[in-house]
Amino acid sequence: MVGVACTLTGGLSTHRHGSLLAPHDVTATLLLSCDDAIGIIATVTGFVNEHGGIICSSETHRDEEQGKFFQRLEFEVDHFDLDRETIRPLMEWAIGDHFSVRSRIAFSDQEQRVGVLASKPAHCLHDLLSRWRLGELPGRPVCIISNHPDHTAEAEYNGLPYHHLPVTPETRSEQEERMIEILEEARVDLVVLARYMQILTPRFLECFPNRVINIHHSFLPAFPGGSPYRQAYMRGVKVVGATAHYATAELDQGPIIEQDVTRVSHRDSVTTLVRRGRDLERVVLARAVQAHLEHRVLVVDNRAIVFG
Amino acid sequence: MVGVACTLTGGLSTHRHGSLLAPHDVTATLLLSCDDAIGIIATVTGFVNEHGGIICSSETHRDEEQGKFFQRLEFEVDHFDLDRETIRPLMEWAIGDHFSVRSRIAFSDQEQRVGVLASKPAHCLHDLLSRWRLGELPGRPVCIISNHPDHTAEAEYNGLPYHHLPVTPETRSEQEERMIEILEEARVDLVVLARYMQILTPRFLECFPNRVINIHHSFLPAFPGGSPYRQAYMRGVKVVGATAHYATAELDQGPIIEQDVTRVSHRDSVTTLVRRGRDLERVVLARAVQAHLEHRVLVVDNRAIVFG
Amino acid sequence: MVGVACTLTGGLSTHRHGSLLAPHDVTATLLLSCDDAIGIIATVTGFVNEHGGIICSSETHRDEEQGKFFQRLEFEVDHFDLDRETIRPLMEWAIGDHFSVRSRIAFSDQEQRVGVLASKPAHCLHDLLSRWRLGELPGRPVCIISNHPDHTAEAEYNGLPYHHLPVTPETRSEQEERMIEILEEARVDLVVLARYMQILTPRFLECFPNRVINIHHSFLPAFPGGSPYRQAYMRGVKVVGATAHYATAELDQGPIIEQDVTRVSHRDSVTTLVRRGRDLERVVLARAVQAHLEHRVLVVDNRAIVFG
Amino acid sequence: MVGVACTLTGGLSTHRHGSLLAPHDVTATLLLSCDDAIGIIATVTGFVNEHGGIICSSETHRDEEQGKFFQRLEFEVDHFDLDRETIRPLMEWAIGDHFSVRSRIAFSDQEQRVGVLASKPAHCLHDLLSRWRLGELPGRPVCIISNHPDHTAEAEYNGLPYHHLPVTPETRSEQEERMIEILEEARVDLVVLARYMQILTPRFLECFPNRVINIHHSFLPAFPGGSPYRQAYMRGVKVVGATAHYATAELDQGPIIEQDVTRVSHRDSVTTLVRRGRDLERVVLARAVQAHLEHRVLVVDNRAIVFG
Repeated sequence: MVGVACTLTGGLSTHRHGSLLAPHDVTATLLLSCDDAIGIIATVTGFVNEHGGIICSSETHRDEEQGKFFQRLEFEVDHFDLDRETIRPLMEWAIGDHFSVRSRIAFSDQEQRVGVLASKPAHCLHDLLSRWRLGELPGRPVCIISNHPDHTAEAEYNGLPYHHLPVTPETRSEQEERMIEILEEARVDLVVLARYMQILTPRFLECFPNRVINIHHSFLPAFPGGSPYRQAYMRGVKVVGATAHYATAELDQGPIIEQDVTRVSHRDSVTTLVRRGRDLERVVLARAVQAHLEHRVLVVDNRAIVFG
Repeated sequence: MVGVACTLTGGLSTHRHGSLLAPHDVTATLLLSCDDAIGIIATVTGFVNEHGGIICSSETHRDEEQGKFFQRLEFEVDHFDLDRETIRPLMEWAIGDHFSVRSRIAFSDQEQRVGVLASKPAHCLHDLLSRWRLGELPGRPVCIISNHPDHTAEAEYNGLPYHHLPVTPETRSEQEERMIEILEEARVDLVVLARYMQILTPRFLECFPNRVINIHHSFLPAFPGGSPYRQAYMRGVKVVGATAHYATAELDQGPIIEQDVTRVSHRDSVTTLVRRGRDLERVVLARAVQAHLEHRVLVVDNRAIVFG
Repeated sequence: MVGVACTLTGGLSTHRHGSLLAPHDVTATLLLSCDDAIGIIATVTGFVNEHGGIICSSETHRDEEQGKFFQRLEFEVDHFDLDRETIRPLMEWAIGDHFSVRSRIAFSDQEQRVGVLASKPAHCLHDLLSRWRLGELPGRPVCIISNHPDHTAEAEYNGLPYHHLPVTPETRSEQEERMIEILEEARVDLVVLARYMQILTPRFLECFPNRVINIHHSFLPAFPGGSPYRQAYMRGVKVVGATAHYATAELDQGPIIEQDVTRVSHRDSVTTLVRRGRDLERVVLARAVQAHLEHRVLVVDNRAIVFG
Repeated sequence: MVGVACTLTGGLSTHRHGSLLAPHDVTATLLLSCDDAIGIIATVTGFVNEHGGIICSSETHRDEEQGKFFQRLEFEVDHFDLDRETIRPLMEWAIGDHFSVRSRIAFSDQEQRVGVLASKPAHCLHDLLSRWRLGELPGRPVCIISNHPDHTAEAEYNGLPYHHLPVTPETRSEQEERMIEILEEARVDLVVLARYMQILTPRFLECFPNRVINIHHSFLPAFPGGSPYRQAYMRGVKVVGATAHYATAELDQGPIIEQDVTRVSHRDSVTTLVRRGRDLERVVLARAVQAHLEHRVLVVDNRAIVFG
């Protein structure tokens, strides 16, 4: 009973301020995946506890089929006895080499920067920008890029630089390089494709691995590719959906972060399907962006684990 | 203003009994499709009115894209001045030859007979039979056919003949002939595949055109074919569904009658997806069977119009 | 058979242009309620047909319990042989005095003007204005009134006059008179309370009967009044909702136009319930405003019939 | 770092059989609530780990507003070095007296016994019994009690004793005593009110605290008491629901376990609302019963925490 004895030595402390944390305490969020193992939860939580971290939330997931373990751990770090840089390596070492640990850490005092790309349809763009103005979304938009000039006023109203980069088959790769340059200069942590209708090359996506979120206007894997609402109309489905996923080299095949659906009927024309779908697209994209910026998404084997 | 004048001559009558119909009045339900045309609604409702029918409900649909008109009309026929057999032809004649009219009529005093096919999984079978016992569903089950012996007691409890017809690659076509024979002898108006896991041949389906309803355990067109819940798990979708459709020669491609979905997450294994899906399958199949038996479904070009 | 004969004399005409209507045809939308009667559908559609109107859509509803009939009829009026002013009275006369007919008519070439009221929370306001900028909503916003100065920039960006009318117990009635004045001068057809947190007096509501739409942040009739999300949290509900209704003298008791809900769990704090609820409020209010502006809502006995 | 050191001494073990547990391993499920405290997760998981338990799943919840901590922990006990009876007290002692710990433990090899009460409506009863026949639900039904004779055949078909206890105002308390006697003799762990329409006295409920699950046919707290579908119809709601909750002395006020809803419209009469509602009642009750029997429900201050 040594382990328990030592935790009991210090004993459990009651809160210092009603809530477990003070409003301005800095927290770390650790996302972890490894081979499943007996004792893993006790090891990870014990590690944080021993080093003076206060665990505010812990969510675990076991995928029995794959024999994998996943955890999201949020803990206060002001009283941690390790440097920020050493937390991850020491934690991985504590778990052990042979468990294929992979982890990621983020700190609440590091603001995340977001670049938004949009083509003509503006509903997702308006919605995201309104949410940022209202403080509903974490992070901060830092630039808007579009292949159309349409959103200039919207960018200006939101105090954001607007980059109009028209794309033709001839200029595609050149413009993409320009986009990468802009996004890297702006030091973005996340790229949001808010109905950006140009296909991005693997080269672009490799610059931002698992950091490009796309909204597809159908319930994937149904109706990938172009004109999904027309496809849905022709197939006579009774439900339509929208899907937010990480963009990968294979079109509309990336890990799904969020989906939602709405009932439709024979009375819906392609036009009304599009209109109904827009409400889904707005909210599905916003939820996916929020989940990513709150460090709740872990990607394994093309599947996204989205903690609650 | 001749038309209005003449309708006014008779004048509108108030109800005879609070409600428009007496409880035991026989009603006809007419399902109609034709090329769209100016005056079509007035023509159809005028026809019924002039012949003494009391319209209880009328629902119309215009598909502007296809230039098609659809109507479901329910009317009392006890005071109709035409024979049952002549209603349809005279109505079609009133609309006119060149409008590609197609119609179907059913009368509320003609009971509909249903044959149910099921393989091992019994949840849909149990659910449908319970609904019939409770009077929740119209129509009447008349026989159960299965390639397994598992449901003998259930059939007996429900007072239904049970036909156990095991299927092997060698006996498939022979057994299918036997099934057709049984269903025709039982004079079924509808065949319900309540998780019947054998593929039916075009020969079988042609015997019961648009009268075989299947439940597929996914949100079609996503995940057709085998093991859809495993496919859904591997793809990491956040919503799973079930689809009831008319079976056609192309597997899982027939007109969709009803669909529904439920949210899932990374925490769902294939096993829990199956369990959640069963609740969808039960209710989606029941709703589709009900819509068909209430004469609310019209099929055009592989799309099902389901009136409300 | 005179009525049918005469419709048949002219015969059914095919479309003039693929679709039933040309893009710029003016349509009338008639909303009608009366005592239920035999022959009513034939009378109404016959009337429009005889006078040269082309019916584009007709939806009817019978409430058997109340013995009432309701219809929404949309028809092209360019070739109508009656003046706009006489359509309603002649139609009511055709149905007959003793059927308690009440009707309303609107024409597609008459733009509807909307006044928007909002307090501090801006999410519904932003959402509605974005929809109008994008052409997603019919009608046109003509002014914004608020008891806070917060939305000045938003109003300016949308090119709308902004009226800041702070309210104290002492100034309430005076400010309300000022609001009525502003809205009447702006000739508004509809007032939208986009999270306007002040109670309006019967005097105000009587100026705009069935023309003030409010969004309540709960699934009414659960949790009327203040702090509904806190009430929902305390009660431990597993689903929260939002309700758009016509404001009436009785707080949160007016006819419900639209509702929607979302699943929640014990993991939701009041704060996250509020955040989830905002997404519902946005879309529920937008759908209600759209239904009203498309003349799809009919109020009878404190219940709203919303045609499809 | 003593605590971590000691966990590391043993080191993490890989699975013994692909999955963490063998199919026949016995697991304990611990449900725990206490005042929130720093180090609580590490203490609890450390305790299990140190005593040789293999944690299969751990879900925690912090209610910041109430300053409370909740945990559901499932662990294999075959290799545990404590007796079953001592696990709970030692765990509570390890956490500490002053944290108001309350806990409950259950073992997977102890079958749970369920008594089902039903009045005339049989849809929930049929549905639950079908699920038990199909192995969809854990636990085992052991008797059916009704104030009507209607379900005799259903009980017999399911091999269950049927107790017909008609209730009149005069016999109510006497019959209730008889019910308590039957249920206690049958050693039930859970009582399910599958549309049992008689009000139970506090005396009855006190015999089975937080062990009586009721299904109410509305979205509580809207429409408590009688005829909720009629109330919903009169209020003109656009969504109806069903609620499963623990029955308490205050009618329809107990902790909510599960709710679900479905969209309705003005076209629904009371009759069709009832029919739609039945599908909700079936599935909502089944989910609540399943959650309870899987030891996923914890009640605190009239709110139910339902782990995932």
